[in-house]
Parts: sequence; structure tokens; C-alpha cells
Amino acid sequence: MSAPAFAIPSPTGSTRLYAVVGNPIEQVMAPSLMNRLFLDRNVDAVLVPVKAEASGIAAVIEGLKLIGNLGGILVTVPHKFAACGHADHLSERAELAQSANALRREADGSWSADNFDGAGFVAGLLKAGYAVAGKMISLVGAGGAGVSIAAALMLAGTADLSITDVDEQRMAALADRLAQRWPGRIRASSMPIAGDIMINATPIGLQPEDLLPFSVDNLPPRTVVSDIIMKPAETRLLAAARARGLRVHPGLPMLTEQIELYRQFFRVP
Amino acid sequence: MSAPAFAIPSPTGSTRLYAVVGNPIEQVMAPSLMNRLFLDRNVDAVLVPVKAEASGIAAVIEGLKLIGNLGGILVTVPHKFAACGHADHLSERAELAQSANALRREADGSWSADNFDGAGFVAGLLKAGYAVAGKMISLVGAGGAGVSIAAALMLAGTADLSITDVDEQRMAALADRLAQRWPGRIRASSMPIAGDIMINATPIGLQPEDLLPFSVDNLPPRTVVSDIIMKPAETRLLAAARARGLRVHPGLPMLTEQIELYRQFFRVP
Repeated sequence: MSAPAFAIPSPTGSTRLYAVVGNPIEQVMAPSLMNRLFLDRNVDAVLVPVKAEASGIAAVIEGLKLIGNLGGILVTVPHKFAACGHADHLSERAELAQSANALRREADGSWSADNFDGAGFVAGLLKAGYAVAGKMISLVGAGGAGVSIAAALMLAGTADLSITDVDEQRMAALADRLAQRWPGRIRASSMPIAGDIMINATPIGLQPEDLLPFSVDNLPPRTVVSDIIMKPAETRLLAAARARGLRVHPGLPMLTEQIELYRQFFRVP
Repeated sequence: MSAPAFAIPSPTGSTRLYAVVGNPIEQVMAPSLMNRLFLDRNVDAVLVPVKAEASGIAAVIEGLKLIGNLGGILVTVPHKFAACGHADHLSERAELAQSANALRREADGSWSADNFDGAGFVAGLLKAGYAVAGKMISLVGAGGAGVSIAAALMLAGTADLSITDVDEQRMAALADRLAQRWPGRIRASSMPIAGDIMINATPIGLQPEDLLPFSVDNLPPRTVVSDIIMKPAETRLLAAARARGLRVHPGLPMLTEQIELYRQFFRVP
């Protein structure tokens, strides 16, 4: 990541603390985005990166939770599943996804978890003019982001959702969980099925030498192809779809749309 | 605390993290001082305040220690004694004081603790032109700062040290520990004894209504009276000593002199 182009007041003893926990952590954009939010709103708070190995994640999160001036915790790869185990209450979408990316302390001292990946992704699609209600959507990748996107799509009224993942166990687990709530509208598919919207929620495309996560060759012209990868902004998948005349939707809005959701969740004025 | 008069670059995912742990935490000056240091040296790091109750201090420190991008931990009231228990190695002065205010990770993954309160205090005295080697010094207060000052004074060559504390047990414990190393040169005294330098290391004087921690009425004219309290900058003790024509030494240098010691300890370039 390049350095941010802005400055914040130096923290003092009365600054409220927020953390984003992940591994690796160098690439996370949450510090820049949330610190910009605090700055714009004149809130005396700072969000800092916290790198934690899987072996230490429980102790790191439990330690953070005991910090009196902690305003909240964001959680990123690979700790979103583990994060659920550190909350007393899960939101509906975090429960559906079995994955959380935000933890906050309630007035009674208990901890709540929510997951805004999917809500941010859906908000970004809607803002770009792509409806999801009533649509047939194909999701490739049932990892940390994929599970949240699946839950958010269904909560937003997606008619039929097809889920594909190379890990058949987690693919089936997610499909089964969603099918309990939305019977007949979820299918697990070992190969991606053509849909109104095709979403890559795998890491395939992060590396320049990566193949495409799915072929765009035979998709109908009305198809929207989306990739949650933020860097590069235009992945090989999106470039290929664009070359075929398809509409494309990039990864960044999923994150930027979450900032307002985080703000509300953390009750930042 | 008033807001600092300077700004720092917003933290990003690659920013190194430092924490100062205490309770209360609002008054700590370490964030302003250390963030100024990082800024001046163009180091991508931020020091943040961490408020921790005694009941949670072990979990908070152990959690911090597992953070991969943590550069180090400063510890302040009331956790300096507990901090020793979280280090694999204690410096000589931390061992003597049984108190630590800084923890760092070594190359082998172990943790070292040191205590710079006393060294900072002594450095401030020396810089102000007050020698301690060969002197008779009277220290009132054997708490978190007092124990460290006692150890640093003796390591700097103080000839005779008198220690007073209302808590007779901790007064005797400190005196006994130092007397093992410097037999015949340490005494525990229930009432402060006149010395070349008289040091208040109690919290008496933080509140406007506080009485003096010791009387300055019969001190010889050559006496230096020092107070480790930083706010107010001139305590009632120092005002009374000054009114009697005695030389006085305030609390702030103890902290400002520590910044360079922290820098070296944390290997900040």
C-alpha cells in the first residue's frame, strides 16, 4: 500500500482506539478509510493495524476486548470465522455466514458481531444500478467474503443463488445453511452456472499469472461480471468480460460502502 | 490533557504499533512524546493509549505481545509491578525495582523488560546540574516510580539513600532489596530525613487540597527539593521550597529524559 495522502492529529491519552485484525495486514485499507472518517467527523479516535497469527488470534482478540478505551474491532482474512467465537451475539447475516468482520462492546459489556462484507458488496451493486432482487446469481468462492456475500444477496431478495467452491465441504455447508432459510433457492454447484450476475469471491486474480476463476466465453450479453478483488482494480476476469462486451463491477465498492456501515455499527457520531 | 499541536500521517496497514498501558490513561503524555519522535524521525509507527483494569492486565499484555507488528509496550500506573511478570528477562534496574515500564520483543521471540523512570529522573537531575554521586538523598514514596528512582539513584552512585513510605511493608521490601546490593547505605525511615536532595515520589500534590508530602521548614539552604508530579508543574511542595529559598526540580524532566531511552530500547532508528 502506498502511504495515505492525509494526516491525523497525533493520538493522546484520551484517544479512542479501533483495531483491524488480520494476517497479512500490510495491505488493509481500513486504517486509511476509517481514519479519514474520524478526521472528517472530528472524532478523537484512531484505527490501527493488528497482525495476528491463527495460533494467537484468540488471545489477541480477548486482550483487545479488555481494553477500556477500545471502540471496536474489525476483522479480516483469515480470522473472520474465528471472530464469531468471540461474540456473545451474532447478527442475522453473521449467523448465516458463520463469519464476522466487526465486533463491538454493548452497554452491558457483552460483545456483538456483524459482517458487513456482503452488505457492502450488495450496496455497491445497487449503487452501480445492478438490482439483485429476483435475480439469478452465481457466486464463485465460499470463503470469508463469499459466505457474507451469499447471505447478503439472499437477504436482499436474490431469487436463486448458485454457490461454487473448490472446497466441497464448505460449499455444501454454506448451501445447506442458506437452504434451511430459503429452501429451493440455493444450489451448490461444482461448476459455475450462468446467472444474471456472476461474482468472483475467490482470491484468483490477485496474482498476474492467475487463470480466470471462471470462463466468460458463453455468458449472455446481459450478464454482469463482478470481482471482489481490489488490487488490481481491473482483474483479468473483468478485462476479459469487458472485452466480450459484458458489464463489469469491481471490488473496491464492497469496501468503501462498508465504511458508513462500520460508522453506524460503532456508533461514531 | 490538551490536544497535541501536531499531526501525524494516518496509520496504514504497514504501520508499526506501540502501546502505553495504564489506568487511568487519559493523562498520559507518552503518545504525544513518542508520536512526535516517530514523526521527527520519519518512522512509520504510532503509539496508542491502552486502558486496562488490574483484573484484565495479564490478558491485555499477553494479547499485545502476540501482535506481529507490535514494536513495544510502555507501562504506567498501576501496572508497573505486574509488567515484570510478563517478561522473560529483567534489566538490572527493573530487577532491583521489581517494576517495569517498558517491554520489548527480542530477536528470539522472548520479551525483555526495563524501567526508565529512575534513569530518566536521574538524567533530569544531572542535566539541571544536581549531582547525585556521593550525596545523601531522601526519597519519599516507594511506589511504581519511587522504586525505580531508588534503584537508579544507587546505580548512579548515591552514597546514602533514605526511603520513606506510609506502606511500611513495601518500604522495608525495597530497602532490604537495595541493602543486599549496597549494604550500609540504605535506610528505611518512617519519617523523611533531611538530605542533599529531597524527592517526593508520592501522588501527594496532584490535588490542590493536598498537604505537603514532607515539611520544608527546617531544610538546610543547600537542599534541592524535587517533585515527580508533572501537573501542576509547580506543586505546593515546590512552591513552599522555593519560598524558603531552596533550589527546586520539577517532574517533567523525568518523562522527557526517558524518550531518548525508550527510543534506544525500542531500537527506533
